[in-house]
Formats: sequence, C-alpha cells, structure tokens
Amino acid sequence: MTAKDQYKVHKEPFYQQQTNEVTLYEAAYAARLPVMIKGPTGCGKSRFVEYMAWKLNKPLITVACNEDMTASDLVGRYVLEANGTRWLDGPLTTAARIGAICYLDEIVEARQDTTVVIHPLTDHRRTLPLDKKGELLEAHPDFQMVISYNPGYQNLMKDLKQSTKQRFTAFEFDYPDAQLETSIVAKETGTDEALAAKLVKIGTTARNLKGHGLDEGISTRLLVYAATLIKGGVEPRDACRMSLVRPITDDADIRDTLDHAIDAIFA
Amino acid sequence: MTAKDQYKVHKEPFYQQQTNEVTLYEAAYAARLPVMIKGPTGCGKSRFVEYMAWKLNKPLITVACNEDMTASDLVGRYVLEANGTRWLDGPLTTAARIGAICYLDEIVEARQDTTVVIHPLTDHRRTLPLDKKGELLEAHPDFQMVISYNPGYQNLMKDLKQSTKQRFTAFEFDYPDAQLETSIVAKETGTDEALAAKLVKIGTTARNLKGHGLDEGISTRLLVYAATLIKGGVEPRDACRMSLVRPITDDADIRDTLDHAIDAIFA
Amino acid sequence: MTAKDQYKVHKEPFYQQQTNEVTLYEAAYAARLPVMIKGPTGCGKSRFVEYMAWKLNKPLITVACNEDMTASDLVGRYVLEANGTRWLDGPLTTAARIGAICYLDEIVEARQDTTVVIHPLTDHRRTLPLDKKGELLEAHPDFQMVISYNPGYQNLMKDLKQSTKQRFTAFEFDYPDAQLETSIVAKETGTDEALAAKLVKIGTTARNLKGHGLDEGISTRLLVYAATLIKGGVEPRDACRMSLVRPITDDADIRDTLDHAIDAIFA
Amino acid sequence: MTAKDQYKVHKEPFYQQQTNEVTLYEAAYAARLPVMIKGPTGCGKSRFVEYMAWKLNKPLITVACNEDMTASDLVGRYVLEANGTRWLDGPLTTAARIGAICYLDEIVEARQDTTVVIHPLTDHRRTLPLDKKGELLEAHPDFQMVISYNPGYQNLMKDLKQSTKQRFTAFEFDYPDAQLETSIVAKETGTDEALAAKLVKIGTTARNLKGHGLDEGISTRLLVYAATLIKGGVEPRDACRMSLVRPITDDADIRDTLDHAIDAIFA
Amino acid sequence: MTAKDQYKVHKEPFYQQQTNEVTLYEAAYAARLPVMIKGPTGCGKSRFVEYMAWKLNKPLITVACNEDMTASDLVGRYVLEANGTRWLDGPLTTAARIGAICYLDEIVEARQDTTVVIHPLTDHRRTLPLDKKGELLEAHPDFQMVISYNPGYQNLMKDLKQSTKQRFTAFEFDYPDAQLETSIVAKETGTDEALAAKLVKIGTTARNLKGHGLDEGISTRLLVYAATLIKGGVEPRDACRMSLVRPITDDADIRDTLDHAIDAIFA
Amino acid sequence: MTAKDQYKVHKEPFYQQQTNEVTLYEAAYAARLPVMIKGPTGCGKSRFVEYMAWKLNKPLITVACNEDMTASDLVGRYVLEANGTRWLDGPLTTAARIGAICYLDEIVEARQDTTVVIHPLTDHRRTLPLDKKGELLEAHPDFQMVISYNPGYQNLMKDLKQSTKQRFTAFEFDYPDAQLETSIVAKETGTDEALAAKLVKIGTTARNLKGHGLDEGISTRLLVYAATLIKGGVEPRDACRMSLVRPITDDADIRDTLDHAIDAIFA
Repeated sequence: MTAKDQYKVHKEPFYQQQTNEVTLYEAAYAARLPVMIKGPTGCGKSRFVEYMAWKLNKPLITVACNEDMTASDLVGRYVLEANGTRWLDGPLTTAARIGAICYLDEIVEARQDTTVVIHPLTDHRRTLPLDKKGELLEAHPDFQMVISYNPGYQNLMKDLKQSTKQRFTAFEFDYPDAQLETSIVAKETGTDEALAAKLVKIGTTARNLKGHGLDEGISTRLLVYAATLIKGGVEPRDACRMSLVRPITDDADIRDTLDHAIDAIFA
Repeated sequence: MTAKDQYKVHKEPFYQQQTNEVTLYEAAYAARLPVMIKGPTGCGKSRFVEYMAWKLNKPLITVACNEDMTASDLVGRYVLEANGTRWLDGPLTTAARIGAICYLDEIVEARQDTTVVIHPLTDHRRTLPLDKKGELLEAHPDFQMVISYNPGYQNLMKDLKQSTKQRFTAFEFDYPDAQLETSIVAKETGTDEALAAKLVKIGTTARNLKGHGLDEGISTRLLVYAATLIKGGVEPRDACRMSLVRPITDDADIRDTLDHAIDAIFA
Repeated sequence: MTAKDQYKVHKEPFYQQQTNEVTLYEAAYAARLPVMIKGPTGCGKSRFVEYMAWKLNKPLITVACNEDMTASDLVGRYVLEANGTRWLDGPLTTAARIGAICYLDEIVEARQDTTVVIHPLTDHRRTLPLDKKGELLEAHPDFQMVISYNPGYQNLMKDLKQSTKQRFTAFEFDYPDAQLETSIVAKETGTDEALAAKLVKIGTTARNLKGHGLDEGISTRLLVYAATLIKGGVEPRDACRMSLVRPITDDADIRDTLDHAIDAIFA
Repeated sequence: MTAKDQYKVHKEPFYQQQTNEVTLYEAAYAARLPVMIKGPTGCGKSRFVEYMAWKLNKPLITVACNEDMTASDLVGRYVLEANGTRWLDGPLTTAARIGAICYLDEIVEARQDTTVVIHPLTDHRRTLPLDKKGELLEAHPDFQMVISYNPGYQNLMKDLKQSTKQRFTAFEFDYPDAQLETSIVAKETGTDEALAAKLVKIGTTARNLKGHGLDEGISTRLLVYAATLIKGGVEPRDACRMSLVRPITDDADIRDTLDHAIDAIFA
Repeated sequence: MTAKDQYKVHKEPFYQQQTNEVTLYEAAYAARLPVMIKGPTGCGKSRFVEYMAWKLNKPLITVACNEDMTASDLVGRYVLEANGTRWLDGPLTTAARIGAICYLDEIVEARQDTTVVIHPLTDHRRTLPLDKKGELLEAHPDFQMVISYNPGYQNLMKDLKQSTKQRFTAFEFDYPDAQLETSIVAKETGTDEALAAKLVKIGTTARNLKGHGLDEGISTRLLVYAATLIKGGVEPRDACRMSLVRPITDDADIRDTLDHAIDAIFA
Repeated sequence: MTAKDQYKVHKEPFYQQQTNEVTLYEAAYAARLPVMIKGPTGCGKSRFVEYMAWKLNKPLITVACNEDMTASDLVGRYVLEANGTRWLDGPLTTAARIGAICYLDEIVEARQDTTVVIHPLTDHRRTLPLDKKGELLEAHPDFQMVISYNPGYQNLMKDLKQSTKQRFTAFEFDYPDAQLETSIVAKETGTDEALAAKLVKIGTTARNLKGHGLDEGISTRLLVYAATLIKGGVEPRDACRMSLVRPITDDADIRDTLDHAIDAIFA
C-alpha cells in the first residue's frame, strides 16, 4: 500500500451539506487556495474536511495540534538508527510530497510561532524549506493546506497571527438548523425523527444558555451519543443527563435547568 | 502471559453499586462511547472503573496523569537499542491495539493540550495517528476511553476544554449515603456496623465543613483507614485523629473542631 | 546542482516597483549594507526580496523565524552519524559561505537574544564565529543580510533591540496605492481591471477599519485570492466573503460592515 | 551484600519517644497504611522514620524531594549502555520491589503533579505502573510509603493535593518539651544537663519569636551543634552566636535580641 | 595555523582614540585586571577591544552573548564521536588556555547566573574549574577577561550582579564629540568632511531626542552607512532616511521630525 | 597526582584574621559541622575558606553556583563512551569520596530546591544517595560542607530554606575595619600605607552610600585594583574612577559624588 493509499478516505463519510460549502471548497481546491474552517466544538468541521478529501479523492493527513508540538513534529527530524541517523519526514512534509490535503486540527492550540512553518507553503512559493536537511521541498501540485479554528476559544494569549490568517480563505460553520440536525441525528443513529427532534430541542435550549453560564452549547455529537444510548435501551432521561448535561457543566444551577428541560420534553 | 492477560483484573474488586451506574456504564460500553467519571477525592471513581473492567472481562490500562506527562508518554516513542532505535508503544497505544479500557486518572492534571491526542480515538474515527512512526492505528473493537475528573479542583488555569468534554458521556459520583457508607466501611474492614456508623458520622461532620475551612471532606478511604487501625488495636480516638484529621488539615481551629467531634462520638 | 544554484531564483517573480526601492536596494547591496524591510502583512515584502535576488542573480536563503528557533538552527549543529558526529551548516552559515542573500522573515518572532548571532555578520567584521566548531567564518563577498519586520506587531515583549536595529538600513513598505494595486491584482490573476478595481475598493474600506476593530487591513494577497475564486466561477459576493472577510475577523459587527460593503459594490 | 541489606539501618539511631508515636506507627505499618509525618524543620521527623525502620528491621530508602525531580527520577528510566539501553529502577521502584519503607522527605518540594505517581502504591491496588517499561509492578508485602511535610512552608503554590493527602495517615510532630529536649541535647553530645538546659532556654526564646520576625524557631539540631562546639572548647557565647543565631536570621534587631538572651543566660 | 594565530587580529582596525583610554587599557592589561566597557549601541566598544588586541598583539576571542547561552557554551562540553565522547573546549576555556583576550559582548543578555562561571577567572585565583571534565584549568599568563555592557538597557530583570561587577575595572564610552565623529565618518568612508559634518549634525539632533520618543540616538555606524550610500550615488535625503531614520523608529512623529531635519540640512 | 593532591591549596593564600574566626572554624571543622559564610561581595569569604583549607591541609573543591545548575551537576551523571555509559562523579560526590572541603559559592544562586541534595550530607547521616547509580555514599571522615551566602541579595524569590539554613553553623563577615583594610591593601599590592589609607577612605565614603543609591559598597578587591593600577603608573584619579566608580554605578549623581570624593582625597 503506497503512502498515498494509506491516507485516502476509503468510505464515504456521513455528511449533509448545509449550504453551498462543498462547491466553494471545490473552487478553493481547484486554485489550491489554503482553507480555514471556523466554528464551535462538534459542529462537523473535521467531518467536512474528511468528506471533501473523499469527494476529491485525495489523501488526507490530519494533525491534532497541541501546545507541545514543535516545528520538527510537523516537518520531520533525524532519528538514530543502527547505521547513524535517518531523516524522517513529518506529516506536513509527507503531505507536501505526496500531494495530500494537510489538515491541522485546532491550530490555535499549537504554539503561535510554530505555525509560521506553514507560511511558505501557503503563498505563491508553495515550498517547504527543510533547514535541518538542507532541502527546499516544492509542494506536489495536489497539495492543499487546511486548518480549523474555534473563535470561541480565542483570547489575547492564543490567537492566530494576522500574517497567518491572511494566507487562508475561510469557511464559517455553525450548528445545523433544527430540521437538518434532526435529520442528521436520526440518520446517523437509525432512530426515528420524533426522538431526534426532541433531542435537538434540548440542544437548542442549551445553546441559548451559551454565555449565560455555559461556555459552549451541546454539540451535534452529544445529541448523537444520547440517541445511541436510547437506541441501546437506556431510559431517555438517563441517557440525556449522561450525554447532554454531565459532560458540559459542573454548575449545579445550569445542571438543574437542563435536567428540568429534559424532564419536560420526555415527560 | 499475553499483554491482554497482564492487564486483566483477575479478582473481583470490592464494589457496592450506588444507583444504576453499572447498567448505564454497560450501555455506554456497548456503544463504545467514551466515559468521564466526575466526583470528589476518594469517593470510589477508580474502584468503579476497575470493577467495570472486571465485570466486562476487558483489560484495563490505568494512567495517573501528571503535568509533566507529554503526548509521547501516552502514545509511545523510539528508544535506543543495540541495533538502532525501536518503537515502544505508550499505554494509550497499547490499549488501542489490544482492545483495553484505557483509564486516564485525574486527567486535568495533564497539560491541557496533551489531552488532544485522545481526540481522534474519541469520535467516529476511533483512530490514533502515530505521527512519529508514520502509522495510523485503528482502535481494536473492544477499546474504550475512560477519564476521571474532580470538579472541585478546577480553576481558570486547569480545566478540560469543551472540545474534549464534548467527546464523553459523564457519570457524576459523590460520597455514598450514610447507610451505604457504613456498610462499605464495615464490610471492607471486617468491623462491626456500630463502629462503622460512628466513623461515618465523623465523616459527615467533616463534609459539612467543606468550603468553611476544609478543601475537601473526609473520604471513604480515610474512614476505612480508621476502622483498620481500630481493628488493629489502636485506641479509637488516636486512630481517628491520625486517619481522619491530621491528614486533611493544618488549621488549628478545624483540627480542634474535628477532635472534639471525635471525643464526643467515642466518649 | 551546486548549493548556489539550488538557491537561485530561476523565474522572474511578479513584482511592480512602488517608487525607487529597487535602485536603493541595489545601492545598499553594492555596499553590502544589511537591509531591513518594514511593513504590514501581505504588502509584498517577501516578494520584493525574492525579486531583488533574481535581479541581482544571487542565491536567496529564506528562514521563517519562530519563537522556538535557536541560534543552532541558524548557525548549524553536529548531527550523529554512523562514524560519529558530522557538522551540518545552518541556513545562515550556508548563506555566508556561498555568498547568498540571507533573508530572515518576521525576525521579531525569533527570541530577541537569538538575533544577536547575526551581529558579527552585520558590522565591519562580516564574520560568523562557529563556537561549537571552533571556526571563525569570514562571509563570502556576495553575502548580504536582509530581515523583515512588521511594526504593527511590536509590543514591549517583542521588539528588536536597538543594537540590532542599528546594524541595518531600512525600507518602509505599505500597501500599494489603488491604481497600482488594481493593476497588480488584474495582472497576477488575469482578471479585468474593472473587477480588480472593485476588489481594491473593498480593500480600502477594510484598511480604514484598522485600529477600529481590525488588527490589520485586507492584504493584497487576499484581494488576489478573491479575484482567483471569481475567475474560477465563484459568485463574487461568496468569493469576497470567503477571501476578504472570514479570514480576518471573528467580530460579528465588523463582519456585517464588510459584508454590506461587498453587497454594495457587487450589487 | 543484597540491595535489601544495603538499605537496612544497621545501628540503632538515637531516638527518644515523645508520646505513643512508636506504637501508633507500628499499627500503621502492620496494616501497611501510608504515613505522613508533619512538623517544623529539625524536630526529628527523619530521625523518627529511621528509628522505625531500624525497629521494624526493614530497609529504608530515602529520597530528598526537589522541584526538578521528575516522575522518572522516582520510577526509573532507560540508560544507554554498550549493548543498547538498560532499564534502571528508580528509588520508588526499588523500594516497592524489595519491600522497603520508601521515605519521600519534604514532599511538597516536588512538583505537585509528580507526586501522583505514588497514588496507585497508596491505595488498595498497591501497584506501580512502569509505563515506559510496560510493566505493572505489584508492591512487595513489606513495602510502605512514608512522606514528610512541613506545614509552615505551605502556600497557595505549593501544597499537597487533597487527593494525595487523603491517602495517608498522619503524625503531627513538634519540638520536644523542655525537659525531654534537655535530655536529648545532653545525651546526644555528652554534655551535662545544666548546660543543655541553658541552650534549651535559648531555643524556647527563639521559638517564641516565630511569626514575629523569625520564619522558624531554633531546631533541636542547632542546639546540638552549640553543645558540640562548647564541648570542643569554644566559648559558650561564641558557640551560641555561631550555631543558634547567625544561621537563622539576617535581621539586625532579631540578631541583637537573641545575642542579649545568650549573654544573659551565659552571664 | 595555530589556534593562537587564528584569533590574532591581523590588520590594524580603524580606531581613533577619544581620550587616554588606550594607555589606561594597557595598564589594566599589564596587571591582567578584568575590564568592562560601558556605553551606548554603536559607539565603538567592540572596535576598541579589537584595536587593543591588535596593539597588544594578543589573540582575541569574541562571544556574542545571548539568553540561550549556557555555561557549557562558554566552558565546553563532551561531543559524541565514533569512539565515544570527546571533550570540546568552549571559547572561554580556549581563551584561558592559549592566553587570549576573551571578550563577552553584551554580557547582560546572558542569563545572569551563567555569568558566574567567569568569577574564578576574574579574581586572584585565575582558574576555571571544568567540573564536567574534572579539570581545574589555570589561566595562561596572557589571558584577560573583557566584557561589554550597555547601561541604557538595564532593568530590574537584567543587570549584572554586584558580585560580577566588582571583579572589573570599567571604561565608560559615549559617542565621540562632533569634530572627532566628523573625522571618523570622513576617514572611514572616504567622503569629504563637509558631508560628514552634515551627517554628524543629524546624529546630534537625534541623540537629543533620546528619552523623548527615541530609545537610543543614531550611532556612528549608521552615519557611516549614510555616507557610504551617498558615496555610492544615492541622493543624500534618500540615503539619510534609509540609514538614519527608518532603522531606529516606527513612530510617525519622530520620523517626520527627523525627516524635516534631514531636509533642512540637505536643502 | 592524586585527586586529593589536585585539590590541595599548595601556596598559603594571603589572609589576615579579623577576630577569632580561624579558631572558631577549626572547632567547627573538628566536629565536622557544616559552615555557612555570610557577608557582602568581595569582603574575603572565598579567600577565608581557601585559607582554612590550606591551614587544615585538606583538599578544597569550589563550585560557583548558578541558576542553571542541576542536582546532577553536583552529584554526577552517566556520560556516553565507546563502550556504553560511564558514571562521572560530580564535584560534591568527589568531595565526599576523597574527604575534601566542598565549598558551594553563592549558594542562593542555585535553584532553591537543588540545594536539598546536600541535606543528607549535612546531618547525622553524612551520606549522599546517588539515586541514578543506586549507591548510598558514606562521606569520608574528612569531608566538610561549606557554603557562602550574601544576605544583601536575598529576596522573596531567592533565599535559603530554613530546613537548609538550620543545618549550618554560620560566620558573619563584613568589610575589615579601616586600619586592617589599609594594611591588607598595602601588603597585597606592595604600595605604601599612606596611599592605601586614602583608598580605604574612598571605600568608606562609598559604603556609606549603600542603600542610598548604591546596592553594594566598594569591595576590598576593588581597592586592591586601584592600588595595583597606581603602582603600575596610572594617575591616581584615573585609577580610582576606573576601579572604584565606573564598575559599581551607572547613576550620574552617584558617579559625580564619588568622583568629587576622589578629587578631594587626591587633590
């Protein structure tokens, strides 16, 4: 299996288009413009990128960014072997070589300045200098850079630099509207639409509390968890408490408010 | 002995169900949903996970999280050997390979951003990218992710990110009620219920002081310590001072208050 | 291919002179004076350096600076090989050896004190002490040092030291004026001047918001992105939202203001 | 000599019981309960642990904790050898293997989160996961965990976590009362009781200044130093200034107060 | 070529004495007293040291200090080779061995406490303990320690410790007076004195703004840059803007003030 | 030459007793009590220790402490060699093995918690656990621990812990009185007493400014520098400015005050 095959998305991911984002992404990819996906936790950003990689039939290399990630983790390093050292490409370098879509998930988690290594890959140069190897890598024509970004997290300490932001076209995601979300929950879990609609209603209640004691609303993912547990035989109120409330808050008042909403809906 | 066997819980751990948490956990496991156990120190979170691993007959790999833990400590690293380097799986990777329950104890102790390495294992992907090895590991069908979390500790600097929280179903634990706790203390130490009840009464007194000079109440574990010492021949008041008071406070007033409570109960 | 050839700029980069900066740079290069290019994000600083390297027919070695960059990353280090260690020149050393223009992009990102390694290369000495190798390298007669610097970013924590600044002659760049920028956007993307002029108008609107809710205005690069997408068939308003607005702001008010400006211009 | 022998305390340490702490410790050891020794500097905490190890005839492994101590320093690490790497047990692991008392001296000096590695050794599990070696070590039946802790130092930044505290039974030590301390000083140095009593009187004076310009009182250890010097022929006032005053304060007023007390007592 | 020869200054550096500093330095060197050179950026501190090394015909080893510099970078370290490790002297050790003048440029940039490694070389001991090598190196009779120091930079966080300062004799440098500076600029660049005088006048204007919006005045070095560019055919006002103004300020008001001064002088 | 010989002080250091400190030190050494030398910069602390080592005919191992010093730098570490790793004793371990006086100069510079490694060597145990080597080293009977400490530097961030302080007897040093200091300066430099007295007078003036704009007074060492330069032919006022004023202050007022004092004394 070639590296290219290993990173192909072989099965169509479950994805429902919200507006015309698939067409717009295709246009951005056609010009190989870098893409930034903005949006709250669990609204489907990663799923969308995976879907696009499948649709475009390109390999996808995903990197979950974290604060300890160094430029070497992205670009590569020498590893020691029996006969001295061997250069090992990092995921960014691999993507640039084989022509993959390189997806840096939650990029603001990375040290702000580590992100500058992607700069020469995201302007007209499309090159990656491997300083430690003394190589100037020209990106494969199929290579594209994609990053995700949750504006809700940003603060003075952690934000993308303008010189990074201004290298990307951007998509702004949000939770799907009630009808679409109901359909997503029902289809993904195989439950009926009536149950899914009830869960989406709880989700809407919680999202209205965002900024009033909740940092984030309930994600579509958690609604899917609840539907899954109910389908597996758990009493709906138990399933909702365990999937929709306990994970997102430690505050007794918020918890009670949400528990009451659940009781009302599943009365 | 295979790795799987090494991590099996061979003896049934002592565990008394509080409500329907065992059934709910089984449902979460059946869908392989990630689980978060919330609750104060010493209320039995780790014991519960151990019990469930025993009941489900699955290997359990526990990692006590700490601030110095890096992503490599979880995922693995190259170690140098006579014939060059060899890859060594970390506990998270081992768990994903052999299909164990991977339990990250006190996860908020870990660097917040190190926790992002568990993300791809806790959504529909169920994969773990081993970037340094160039491998994309698909989790074994039996693999499940479990974390524990003490809401009492959280502060602005140390809390789980919403994008992590929203990947888990959650159980909220508390100290058992007096009757159940009495039974636990008596059964685990082999002391009579009358003595156990007295100790539980002291525990209740201390828990009421939480937030009024005490950071945490007396845990069930400490009650068990006191009972053990008394059973071993130590005078009850000495045993209580040494097990229930001295460990949890340096404050002279709080200490005296608790000492008086002990004297009153064992008068 | 020699190292010198590898770093030559083989194709003339697209560059339109703003005033007499090309002549002035040539004079600075003739005396081998170090050069600092100041200006906002995406105004063409890197492109200018690339153009000059092409025009002067000198190799160009670019280093994207970042906070984790150590002096060793610039100067070089010993790497372990089968027969012990081998010295590997860093990009700064390579440039000094082969007589390249060494361009440190976004130098203020580097640790302030790491930048002192360039001092002996930027005064009358034109030497680079390789302390770890015990070599005192005299720079090739063609070597020149160039740095870029975005004054908009500077703060108390991150600024160049005077002892560094006072080793450079400086060029101050800004966005090109409307007519020139229109011509740049049209020529670089092959779109007509009327469309380009509209995009430049949106750019001007955004730049007026700098300091009133926007950290930076829209760069020429983003205008080129929008023109590219429109040329690729995307509806102009979609292309502008995606290229000019979403990347640069998370603020709902600013976003709406810019969206309205787009609607007005493409009505 | 086996490792067990190497860590045995071969000579009875000089120790005078204060109340019933020896009996209580024996009861804690009999149940293998973890023990925490609290008390001010130099009051005999380490000596007590050493004495108990001698009395119980168990090996004792002492670790002086410090801020740079990592979990690996306690648990062990791979070291490079001629034929690749070899695992080297750390002191905690050695203690757990051979059944020693493991004494972590001044545990609050260690990074708070490093201390979590002792958790699985201090609850019902009595195991130590050697993640890097892929081994789950079960503690030897004789193994016991002991820590020391000086409440006077604690502050918001450095304190034991409740989840650590609640794993220990605790002993609270203080300076011995005047009569006992006189006897200790006299017996340990071979001086007469009259001289020892004078020194203890100076110690009492200083301890009353604690919190009024002195961080800590004069420890029994320093009284022993003074007696030793006097016995060696040094003039008592010189010996006291040098042993009891100069080490503990840089404040001129406090110094003069204590010097006058010394002059008065040795007038 | 011996190490000694490699570090000799082979060509007389251009240097014009300001007062009697050359004689005083010779006296300090005769007694091998350590020397500290204080003064603002670009006033000729490094040039003076180079000149003295040339005049005394001693090797000169210069180290540009930076925050990341460790004691090992100065003293030396073991490097790995085919047959194990080999000790590599650092520049300070080399200087002490061969009898060079060791010049630590901008010493306050180094970590304050790293500077303590020079202590035993700067008192009556004149030794350097190579702890890691187990060697106590006695300095060569010709060895001398020189440091430079810019008092304008100092703040509470970065200053030399008194115990370091009090090991040095000190020279206080400033910009040369107008007449001398005119002569320096003219002689070094081969321009006529009239032009040089005009440039010095601009320099004086800028130095008067120090503390009123400028951190540092224009250095002699920048005046030499301007003269060089003018000699190379650049229009004087362009040359001055580019050499004297743009490098030292980002402030629009200061920039305009200086630009007007230039226009007035070159009207 | 044995290690013991290498560290012997072979020539009697120049030292003039101030009171009875030599006798008191001998008594402390006879009982092997740890010694702390307190006092301002350059008052002769290190010289005293060197003198005592010479007088007692014991090897002396000096370690200049710094913030980057780790416990391993004191204790030792494994170094890589052709045939694997070899343990290399650090200076503290060497001193304990061969029975040297181990002198930690400016101990408060070391990380506070690194200093705990000396604890077991400074109480009744007189042992040093080499955890990484698995060895428990018993100190040689001749071994003694000495530290120096400048109370003038201490602040909230950097001070010795009481648990460290209370392991030492302490000597408090100050600048010698005028008569003794005059004699020291004259004898050490071979100048006449009249000149030395004048220099001491300047020193006294400066010491009175301590706390009124000066952090530290002029040390005896600097007075010796001035006398040395004058003896070498430098004009006294030049010698004093360069040795006594410029090194210790950057403040123009303080500088002028001291310069006037010099002019008055050498009028």
